[in-house]
Amino acid sequence: MIKVAVVGGTGYVGCELLKILSHHPKVCIEVIVGRRSQGKRLAEVYPSLCYIDMEFAAYDLDQLAACDLVFFATPHGVAMKNVPELLGRGVRVIDLSADFRLKDSQSYQQWYGLSHTSPQLLLEAVYGLTEVNRERIHSAALVANPGCYPTCVQLALAPVFTQCALAANDVIIDAKSGVSGAGRTAVERLLFCERNENFSAYGLQGHRHYVEIMQGLRALQASDASAFNITFVPHLVPMTRGIEATLYLRVGDNISRLEELYCTYYKSEPFVELVSASTPPQTKEVSGTNYCKIAVSVSKESGVCVITSVIDNLMKGAAGQAVQNMNLMYGLDETMGLAFIGYYP
Amino acid sequence: MIKVAVVGGTGYVGCELLKILSHHPKVCIEVIVGRRSQGKRLAEVYPSLCYIDMEFAAYDLDQLAACDLVFFATPHGVAMKNVPELLGRGVRVIDLSADFRLKDSQSYQQWYGLSHTSPQLLLEAVYGLTEVNRERIHSAALVANPGCYPTCVQLALAPVFTQCALAANDVIIDAKSGVSGAGRTAVERLLFCERNENFSAYGLQGHRHYVEIMQGLRALQASDASAFNITFVPHLVPMTRGIEATLYLRVGDNISRLEELYCTYYKSEPFVELVSASTPPQTKEVSGTNYCKIAVSVSKESGVCVITSVIDNLMKGAAGQAVQNMNLMYGLDETMGLAFIGYYP
Amino acid sequence: MIKVAVVGGTGYVGCELLKILSHHPKVCIEVIVGRRSQGKRLAEVYPSLCYIDMEFAAYDLDQLAACDLVFFATPHGVAMKNVPELLGRGVRVIDLSADFRLKDSQSYQQWYGLSHTSPQLLLEAVYGLTEVNRERIHSAALVANPGCYPTCVQLALAPVFTQCALAANDVIIDAKSGVSGAGRTAVERLLFCERNENFSAYGLQGHRHYVEIMQGLRALQASDASAFNITFVPHLVPMTRGIEATLYLRVGDNISRLEELYCTYYKSEPFVELVSASTPPQTKEVSGTNYCKIAVSVSKESGVCVITSVIDNLMKGAAGQAVQNMNLMYGLDETMGLAFIGYYP
Amino acid sequence: MIKVAVVGGTGYVGCELLKILSHHPKVCIEVIVGRRSQGKRLAEVYPSLCYIDMEFAAYDLDQLAACDLVFFATPHGVAMKNVPELLGRGVRVIDLSADFRLKDSQSYQQWYGLSHTSPQLLLEAVYGLTEVNRERIHSAALVANPGCYPTCVQLALAPVFTQCALAANDVIIDAKSGVSGAGRTAVERLLFCERNENFSAYGLQGHRHYVEIMQGLRALQASDASAFNITFVPHLVPMTRGIEATLYLRVGDNISRLEELYCTYYKSEPFVELVSASTPPQTKEVSGTNYCKIAVSVSKESGVCVITSVIDNLMKGAAGQAVQNMNLMYGLDETMGLAFIGYYP
Repeated sequence: MIKVAVVGGTGYVGCELLKILSHHPKVCIEVIVGRRSQGKRLAEVYPSLCYIDMEFAAYDLDQLAACDLVFFATPHGVAMKNVPELLGRGVRVIDLSADFRLKDSQSYQQWYGLSHTSPQLLLEAVYGLTEVNRERIHSAALVANPGCYPTCVQLALAPVFTQCALAANDVIIDAKSGVSGAGRTAVERLLFCERNENFSAYGLQGHRHYVEIMQGLRALQASDASAFNITFVPHLVPMTRGIEATLYLRVGDNISRLEELYCTYYKSEPFVELVSASTPPQTKEVSGTNYCKIAVSVSKESGVCVITSVIDNLMKGAAGQAVQNMNLMYGLDETMGLAFIGYYP
Repeated sequence: MIKVAVVGGTGYVGCELLKILSHHPKVCIEVIVGRRSQGKRLAEVYPSLCYIDMEFAAYDLDQLAACDLVFFATPHGVAMKNVPELLGRGVRVIDLSADFRLKDSQSYQQWYGLSHTSPQLLLEAVYGLTEVNRERIHSAALVANPGCYPTCVQLALAPVFTQCALAANDVIIDAKSGVSGAGRTAVERLLFCERNENFSAYGLQGHRHYVEIMQGLRALQASDASAFNITFVPHLVPMTRGIEATLYLRVGDNISRLEELYCTYYKSEPFVELVSASTPPQTKEVSGTNYCKIAVSVSKESGVCVITSVIDNLMKGAAGQAVQNMNLMYGLDETMGLAFIGYYP
Repeated sequence: MIKVAVVGGTGYVGCELLKILSHHPKVCIEVIVGRRSQGKRLAEVYPSLCYIDMEFAAYDLDQLAACDLVFFATPHGVAMKNVPELLGRGVRVIDLSADFRLKDSQSYQQWYGLSHTSPQLLLEAVYGLTEVNRERIHSAALVANPGCYPTCVQLALAPVFTQCALAANDVIIDAKSGVSGAGRTAVERLLFCERNENFSAYGLQGHRHYVEIMQGLRALQASDASAFNITFVPHLVPMTRGIEATLYLRVGDNISRLEELYCTYYKSEPFVELVSASTPPQTKEVSGTNYCKIAVSVSKESGVCVITSVIDNLMKGAAGQAVQNMNLMYGLDETMGLAFIGYYP
Repeated sequence: MIKVAVVGGTGYVGCELLKILSHHPKVCIEVIVGRRSQGKRLAEVYPSLCYIDMEFAAYDLDQLAACDLVFFATPHGVAMKNVPELLGRGVRVIDLSADFRLKDSQSYQQWYGLSHTSPQLLLEAVYGLTEVNRERIHSAALVANPGCYPTCVQLALAPVFTQCALAANDVIIDAKSGVSGAGRTAVERLLFCERNENFSAYGLQGHRHYVEIMQGLRALQASDASAFNITFVPHLVPMTRGIEATLYLRVGDNISRLEELYCTYYKSEPFVELVSASTPPQTKEVSGTNYCKIAVSVSKESGVCVITSVIDNLMKGAAGQAVQNMNLMYGLDETMGLAFIGYYP
């Protein structure tokens, strides 16, 4: 059994992670740290977790150091302070926050408004996009679990960025997310009456996931790759879960070669499904699961390549991928504990 | 009083039109034609219209010819058969279906699968995008009311297409619509349980509104305009009303000149509002109104111009614009009968 | 023109009231008081009100005293402090909060947790359930606008409580409300992700509207009326607007006499519609309107009388009824400014 | 491994059942019969079931007779024709339709409009309300799986009906269901635009589940039980999954004895949770799980006992309970294959 701790169990991602871990056949949850909810029983904060008979504890280094693996599901700024001492005690860490995703501490400061306190770990941390970084995740001490938008977008683009010459330098990413992506914070704009029957773009003046996507795509490109520009616009959808990204780019390749490319790239992946562009993937098809579904097409009218991709933001976009990475780190079947029946209808 | 008839009052657009007309101070609804609902009282089909004490009639040429104006809110293929005889009797027509939107009958046949029975009227029909074609609508005998997506998209692009040199030839249109845009047809994919908590792209293999948008944008361009390609991808949002379009293009101009351009272009328009890209327009802000709200921005990272635009698909995208056009045709204040309080929250 | 002020324009009820008043042909909005939003333009707080070019002011007695009528759309506890001085200056008041609804100051203290500062006004205040108290509202200086649940419930029960002998003493009120009834307060339980796809009872240990309903129903009963007990359980529905109440009671009367009774009672009412129990009223049918729709039935199996009633909580349940009362107070047609087209679909 | 067949896999209940069975460690799905979808692959009908590589077959007696257990998830009227021959071949059956729920064939004919073709099996069939009929289900050849409303209501009332003297003869059942309870049929009233932002009662003139509830509650009563009347009113909630029932009755007992009674009755039940009336159960807490959550209270004002109960209509209200019954019939742990993580948020 892997002895794990979850730090920051009071948000939606923490809740999802606890649900998965509590049903995982090889995991024992030793401690759940929740500063705001310290001393409360889990069921008080999450009535849906009534079957887990534990309470929120204070952060205690010795208690965490006795675990094999610590998950951080905290707001950014927390993990970077605590991770070094845990690594020093031989504990492995999967951080679901943004603290170790960017390789460049300047960039972190610019986008997250904090000076990074453990810049030396940024290069050591392995970016946990499982399908792309499998080898390195396997032996990592510290995994930086990707953001939800970056997961959906990079999985959609990885085959084409790895293999094709881009025919023009503009990549347009029009992404849409359910409201749970914004977390469980009591702010006016996330109220039911504000979001219900409402749709809009946001972050037109810059979004933190832009830089994470940019870094990820650059890493995928071959050395002689063409330069490219990314335009990333996120939108808020009146639903709880799900991310859809529609991506537009010009590729020097035809559709049948593109489809072949994607089939080859994802042939053995248990959690990536390719579907026909005649029935584009719907968020509901992957809701409650760890799947990513992707359709590739080329517009008959304009010749632009259009890729659509869907995930559940709390699963493959957060807690599900974290557990997939854990399985990898401990030599387990990658799908263990992740075979959920999903939530359709 | 303008004596009007509505043909096809049993869909969502027909219902919305009847609601507006029944409160319009200068309109008298003489007859409502509904083949499927013939003989039924309005309130049986639409309990929300219980205050209109009328019943659905059969199509009767003499009865319609006694009106000043006939609205068609029928599926495509109906108006093109009936309009010639009505025009011949001196009746003016506003067609909310697609029958007279395209200038080219070949194109109509290709996209709508029917041979056009009144091709001679296609050039005579005035495309009813009020803000763009105001002069010609004023004196038109036959107005082809625009589609919902084309209205939202063309209003967003009109200033830039009229005035600017496009710096590259790709225009990406990522459009999202509430479910009422698909009509009141009992098909599985429109069931509550299929659309709720669901988001997806559709029409990746071609959508009828593409050709209408293309025709409209071409007409806007100055003679020396650069060529352009359009990629149009519609999406379905789990909400009843509202369309949002996010548009991406490269323009040979900076943001302050762009903003100025939009301000000038829409300065006197009662139903177009420009808003700051720091608070992008939300569909809920225009729900139940005839407004279109637009924000213009230029991505700091990529330099791509990003425009977002919202309308209520049943109002400015259909029935509201039809009444706006009627007001124009009869010399009334364009906003008459359209000052609704909207529906926020 | 009636010169009005609105105190407390930053909640959903205040917003709805401002929308109605801004389109009312006989009203001029002189001032909008919003403590939290003082100095902000209306459109900043409510983008949907962009067409009202005003800003939130501080509370200023002289400014308000220059108006004919002041609306309070504040949380409870505010109006009771300010109303006396306004009445003293000859201004009439419609209070949409709970401050003057209960006749008994002890009861107010018990349920609202505040000692009433103007108990002497409680008897003078006229309870603004228009259909029941029309005569007294006409000449009132101070109208206490009813709560949303009490409006829906009392309109459903008024005919039977006025005219029938209750055959048993239990009246069960199972009421359901959209989320806007809970206001625009940023608390966790009102977040989109908490309420979406969720339904539950609340207030099982007591709800403030119970006592208001009890007081109202007692006042309706003839002197020889049977005693009765009320059980009131509210529920939260994942939608923005609308209240439905299903009421169960035993009446010593048969269905045809009951239907006749309701028809007679509401014959001349512009905003109450009786519908058949074979098509029970739906909240969507009255959404965005000032209507109340009611269906009366008697269970074939149990003989229990079942009444269902729907309103829009922000309209007939708050701002709409307030304007209906204003019309009455100033001798205007009761429906003036309230002929909205509603919001179906 | 239990070899099972599912007849009628194309509705929401069939889909849910296939999902559960496909992950069940002791089950092998041999055949899926779907008349309308015959020959289609499962993933064509349900993209969310893309991981089950099977296709819909025609009904073939020999093929089904080779199975241990056949589930019927068909509309009523189908199972009653096919079950006798299957039982005759030694196959056990769990029928999720209404065909074998009522003990009285006259009653079946009255409420379902069909003459029952296998009335001799009605007494033999075991009503599959697991918590109440556990002993008999264990050895049953034919289990009639309960309806969704009846499950929610009977679990809420079982302790009180078994043990208490009812103090008055009226039991009011105000029940609310998500839209998936109405099935996957393409009819206008189930369209997204009709149900979204809408709430209403229905079935005021009688609902089939009334008679099932009545029969179930009668069976629970001790021999000297007081007579009782049931009034049952269902409502439709704008959400996909979930049922909540609020029940009102007078019991000759106080709240602490009632709470004790419920605790004792459900002490060992893995899928029934009692919660405090201060935090009444919410449908979202049980969404995607096989749990039923119940809160008991007594109104301070009226003395009426108020019980609220929630289930997921597709799980405990249909497919989940069917699998729970299967586990029982085959001597497996009752919770096997049912430990889903649920779907909060």
